[in-house]
Amino acid sequence: MKVYLDGAILNEGEALIPAGDRGVLFGDGIFETVRAYDGKPFRMDRHLDRLSAGCRELRLTGVPSDEVIAAAVAELYRLNVVSGDAYVRITLTGGIFDGNRTLQRPGPPHVYIVVKPFEGYPQEWYERGMRVVVSGIRRSEGSPLSRIKSNNYLANLMAKQEARDRGGDDAVLLNSSGYLTEGTSSNLFLVWRGKVATPGVECGLLPGVTREAVLELCEEYGIACETGLLALDELLQADEAFFTVSTGEIVPIAEVEGTSIGFKCPGPITVRLADAYKQLVKKELAF
Amino acid sequence: MKVYLDGAILNEGEALIPAGDRGVLFGDGIFETVRAYDGKPFRMDRHLDRLSAGCRELRLTGVPSDEVIAAAVAELYRLNVVSGDAYVRITLTGGIFDGNRTLQRPGPPHVYIVVKPFEGYPQEWYERGMRVVVSGIRRSEGSPLSRIKSNNYLANLMAKQEARDRGGDDAVLLNSSGYLTEGTSSNLFLVWRGKVATPGVECGLLPGVTREAVLELCEEYGIACETGLLALDELLQADEAFFTVSTGEIVPIAEVEGTSIGFKCPGPITVRLADAYKQLVKKELAF
Repeated sequence: MKVYLDGAILNEGEALIPAGDRGVLFGDGIFETVRAYDGKPFRMDRHLDRLSAGCRELRLTGVPSDEVIAAAVAELYRLNVVSGDAYVRITLTGGIFDGNRTLQRPGPPHVYIVVKPFEGYPQEWYERGMRVVVSGIRRSEGSPLSRIKSNNYLANLMAKQEARDRGGDDAVLLNSSGYLTEGTSSNLFLVWRGKVATPGVECGLLPGVTREAVLELCEEYGIACETGLLALDELLQADEAFFTVSTGEIVPIAEVEGTSIGFKCPGPITVRLADAYKQLVKKELAF
Repeated sequence: MKVYLDGAILNEGEALIPAGDRGVLFGDGIFETVRAYDGKPFRMDRHLDRLSAGCRELRLTGVPSDEVIAAAVAELYRLNVVSGDAYVRITLTGGIFDGNRTLQRPGPPHVYIVVKPFEGYPQEWYERGMRVVVSGIRRSEGSPLSRIKSNNYLANLMAKQEARDRGGDDAVLLNSSGYLTEGTSSNLFLVWRGKVATPGVECGLLPGVTREAVLELCEEYGIACETGLLALDELLQADEAFFTVSTGEIVPIAEVEGTSIGFKCPGPITVRLADAYKQLVKKELAF
């Protein structure tokens, strides 16, 4: 597999960075994952907008232009994938460490891009719905990092492991006040009496590009939708629930901590939004 | 400078790891920083105990033995420092990434060790005390990561940057319930009416090796000491306050958010404990 590192296309095994990089020492960095449909990344502009916003907050400068990133993604797609869907990950690290333990960095970031054939979630997750546990790990809504897709991603891995240990497919995380936030790499939606709801950014979550698209689709299709504080009980008593994730699109949730969500999974509004999302992708990417 | 990477002593510029390492992508890893006095690391056993405990929680396996780490540190000291004190950082990363976003890792960790001449804090911090701000970033006491010295360290860098932006030397962080936790790379103590207090681990903090030594010293010297919940007001109204940190030992705090702490900085108990700590180091390292 070929990868992009700092302007060069390299064999994966040749893409090396110093072990003393700030990205290694502190997880100082940021990333985006994007799904490319038949070689066309969906809403790459939104992903790069979010990347830029995160870089501003982390004071990461020296980020390549959108054009450079798009060209690298296109080249890697040609080399590694050729046809079909692709998984794209754009990663920036903080670069060289000079002993300064602030956000003042002496050098430019490393930019690392991977594009590989897309491997979707298990088909059964779409058919029967995901089995979800509630993680014991709490998100800090009082930390700006809860709203940045930084390389400080270990809590997400731990929560996913916790789900696996307990026989689940994935986990949802609560914030420190006990309100719902998100999945380990996805946003959470629920449906109650025909109304769609998702936790607000103030709850301590990363607002996804797919989440945004679903909010748009609700408006377009005249489905009532709100963002705000949502309690775990509201999820447990919901008629439907689903995750949104750029790679996996809309993934129904069948049960939470052993409690079945609604009467049927996937529920009718989940199916309708999943179909609408696929239409949106087709329309925007013109295929 | 020479460094240790995965069993080899290399020039710093040759110590490279894949950009696609889990340590880069997710900050999946753990570290310890230790001060070596004239080549002798102080309480390395405690640091390695903490490292092992963290590895168990993160399910990081393949960690070198304490003997291997000690030998690497001794060799790097000989090569890079020769005489005088040294700063030691032992870093482990999660190793190769196979797409599994849990704690199940397909390969061994990378082990990276740096030993370099010790550069202490500015002398004025010991003389006049540190000027501290209260960070807007909240620690999640409900996350196990608050108690592990993981490479997910970006919030600490952000809080330190925040302190610098506001004219401070460092920051203290509150937890999501508003209680005191720690500094950006140190533990926090306060003194009130001759009694010493420090936030308990349950507040969401990394219990330092120096913190532990100070608690021992309080017992030895008959100074009343307790750990538990401490409010910001208790810090602001304290007679004395100080940070503990392996590299910097005991560092007095002069003011918090512009409020002077006590009448004199450093205060008498801070001075007494700082002296006692130096004696302890001398005694244990026999010099």
